[in-house]
Amino acid sequence: VAVEPRFRAALADLLGAGGVLDDPADLEKYETGWRYGKGKALLAVRPATTAQVSRVLALCRERGLRVLPQGANTGLVGASVPDGGGRMVVLSLERLNRRLAIDVLDRTVRVDAGVLLSTLNQALAEHGLTFPVDLSADPQIGGMVAANTGGGRLLRYGDVRHNLLGLEVVLADGTVLDTLTALRKNNTGLDLKHLFTGTSGVFGVVTGAVLQAAPLPRQRAAALVGLRRGEAGLELLRALEHGLSELLTAFEVMSAQALEPVFRGPAALRSPFGQAPPPPYTALVELATTLPEAVLDLPGLLEEALGRHLEAHGDDLADVLVAPPESLWAIRHHISESLRGEGRVLAFDLAVPRSRLPAFTEAVKAALGAEYPCFRVCDFGHWGDGGTHLNLVWDEAAAPLPAAELVPRVQRRVYDLAVLDFGGSYSAEHGVGPHNQACFDRYASAAHKAAGAALKALFDPDGLLGTVRLW
Amino acid sequence: VAVEPRFRAALADLLGAGGVLDDPADLEKYETGWRYGKGKALLAVRPATTAQVSRVLALCRERGLRVLPQGANTGLVGASVPDGGGRMVVLSLERLNRRLAIDVLDRTVRVDAGVLLSTLNQALAEHGLTFPVDLSADPQIGGMVAANTGGGRLLRYGDVRHNLLGLEVVLADGTVLDTLTALRKNNTGLDLKHLFTGTSGVFGVVTGAVLQAAPLPRQRAAALVGLRRGEAGLELLRALEHGLSELLTAFEVMSAQALEPVFRGPAALRSPFGQAPPPPYTALVELATTLPEAVLDLPGLLEEALGRHLEAHGDDLADVLVAPPESLWAIRHHISESLRGEGRVLAFDLAVPRSRLPAFTEAVKAALGAEYPCFRVCDFGHWGDGGTHLNLVWDEAAAPLPAAELVPRVQRRVYDLAVLDFGGSYSAEHGVGPHNQACFDRYASAAHKAAGAALKALFDPDGLLGTVRLW
Repeated sequence: VAVEPRFRAALADLLGAGGVLDDPADLEKYETGWRYGKGKALLAVRPATTAQVSRVLALCRERGLRVLPQGANTGLVGASVPDGGGRMVVLSLERLNRRLAIDVLDRTVRVDAGVLLSTLNQALAEHGLTFPVDLSADPQIGGMVAANTGGGRLLRYGDVRHNLLGLEVVLADGTVLDTLTALRKNNTGLDLKHLFTGTSGVFGVVTGAVLQAAPLPRQRAAALVGLRRGEAGLELLRALEHGLSELLTAFEVMSAQALEPVFRGPAALRSPFGQAPPPPYTALVELATTLPEAVLDLPGLLEEALGRHLEAHGDDLADVLVAPPESLWAIRHHISESLRGEGRVLAFDLAVPRSRLPAFTEAVKAALGAEYPCFRVCDFGHWGDGGTHLNLVWDEAAAPLPAAELVPRVQRRVYDLAVLDFGGSYSAEHGVGPHNQACFDRYASAAHKAAGAALKALFDPDGLLGTVRLW
Repeated sequence: VAVEPRFRAALADLLGAGGVLDDPADLEKYETGWRYGKGKALLAVRPATTAQVSRVLALCRERGLRVLPQGANTGLVGASVPDGGGRMVVLSLERLNRRLAIDVLDRTVRVDAGVLLSTLNQALAEHGLTFPVDLSADPQIGGMVAANTGGGRLLRYGDVRHNLLGLEVVLADGTVLDTLTALRKNNTGLDLKHLFTGTSGVFGVVTGAVLQAAPLPRQRAAALVGLRRGEAGLELLRALEHGLSELLTAFEVMSAQALEPVFRGPAALRSPFGQAPPPPYTALVELATTLPEAVLDLPGLLEEALGRHLEAHGDDLADVLVAPPESLWAIRHHISESLRGEGRVLAFDLAVPRSRLPAFTEAVKAALGAEYPCFRVCDFGHWGDGGTHLNLVWDEAAAPLPAAELVPRVQRRVYDLAVLDFGGSYSAEHGVGPHNQACFDRYASAAHKAAGAALKALFDPDGLLGTVRLW
């Protein structure tokens, strides 16, 4: 598809050098997702100010061109790449990254949407602060809002939504919607920012945010706890929350099937279990505090709490190992990559009420074991908040069907179990994109779709923004 | 206005004994707000199940009758009383209070909307849990959602919205919208519950909720800190957040003008400052932890932290007094009542970015001092989250104008200062009702009103629910 010369010239005039990209080689990075997704763009534009975003959207609208807002393109549901038609304009926020204003007394920060999480955290750290939504990727703030990212420390800090005070959004017609408040309390009816949080940019383009920062902990301590059964993980979680609640920052659980590949895969990390195989489940517990060691010996406290729990529940628990947090997180963070070395992987990002996690995993194993014994269920996740990254690994040669037929059947089976039988979610923290559009279509209620349609008609009546359909 | 007999009979059939009230003496309590608001109802209905709520709404809609959903009627903006026309049906949720199901492993609770906060907390305490949105009133949970109440410990726990997982809402046509999920992570597009949180029941009637509970602290410690100027309060807050962040549960600041009446008014509490007058400002600091005393000496820790701060900032700080939390909260909670003994009171529920609190108060004093020297500015509030309950007290005999003229002028002046000059909120935590409808009309953006109108058209096209206009 050719770009209309006057349109291109208007964009170039507006955005200056490097503002418009249409060389196929330049475009590739904007068409390709970090892990999933590949599309074809008409061109990519890189505005550096909110006013430029507004003007770009107005220009696109005049021509009826669809627009795909894009952050760091690290999303995992394909919502950050254009579709394959070659007619969408990619609106990259990467140059909209000038403002990063910290108010230390307010413990808030005003950022442009294109600021990277890592950049934000470097700046905050100088003031003893952090933005505590902790991820394995380095997204832009605008993308984090549009995806409402969760991550590994949600248990303590909540998701993006919980730390978001104000938002600047540009609507499809170029209108700038400014709710850039730094207020923690502002109970004046409908809170508009929630309409643009977690909705994949389909109602407007996030161009700026005011975030609440958290004090940076002075100490962290972590431990692995071997669990002979999943239920023992829930009991341990309860004991830790009741005993040292405000210090608990993460509670991850990894099955033996998820862990073993880490110790034999390309990373080949040393197993903390030595020569023995990992127990059925292993919990990774992390505490953090702003108190100094002299006041609170955090590793000692953790060791003692876990020791007491082990004594009382010895039948259910195996070893306890307190170790530097980085070494334990390294194990946790190598799981996804290691599983890819074991065969074909079908990944899920599910949540169920956390008290039902063990039962849910058993139900998946029972359902798949009967119909598709080729699958190994490798589950791990943020048990503290009910999240489970269930991964199915299989040897293609041993599968009863080619992947193109097998995968959608199995996805449907697992999603139905999670959503319909266990009151769970088909997308715990990755959001909605083309990759799980079918789930939205199947599971979203009529009221949910009607509200989405009403807001789409209001904010983007020509249907120009994004690739996902939230109605 | 007479009640149509067939309608009354249908309601009585549906709701049984005590389900329909139309005797004027019985109605009075449903027509009268806890502190503000007085209306006139056609009748009051008291459904005990969600199905009954649905049927009541359908019956009212058939007749075009407007409905006022009502919780414990403790709201402070008049949103929980009918208007004066005598044609509204009050839908009291007080009998919809049967379900209160705690999932201890999940740390969540499913409650009917009519359950009182005190009832919920009694039940949770048996499991070492609490619903941490802390208020001076005893509202119903449904009303708390509709008002998105904040309270004194928002700094640590957030408002209702931050602790709300799922919601059941009945729309104006009787449709039951069930999002009663217990999920902490559920990133599947627009999060519907936020449309019904803090929107005063105008989009639907909240009939049930799933809440996240917090572990009940084992220890609390509190202190008063005398401040020679407001800015010293912000410095103290910053030091406490950085030094013992996760333990800090409240940071209140009270001006001398707000405190003095507590020690001479009807409560006549003993002043912790002895014979001396209170300093210009006094901070109330509270810490809480689930750790036992043997691990962490909380009062000792607080005393030491404050002592260190006093040493470094001696010029700005007066005394430090660590005392049992209840005795200090008693002082704080007697302010409103004591001010009423001092003259006429005009109360505000404002928020500004917390770093601007001292400047804001000075600006109010300067503005009013010049034009209306009759006012005493008695400010106190939740400084940790930017909230200030600014109270103006005056002697009516000394006022330049009768209250009916003076009050709206002064309100406009103060609200304009807060919202337009300081980026603040005219309703920090009380929500929107007839009492501050004019503020919504004046300060809400066009986009805010348009979104409200679109949702109202979707969920309640005949405009039957509530008395406030959020569009």
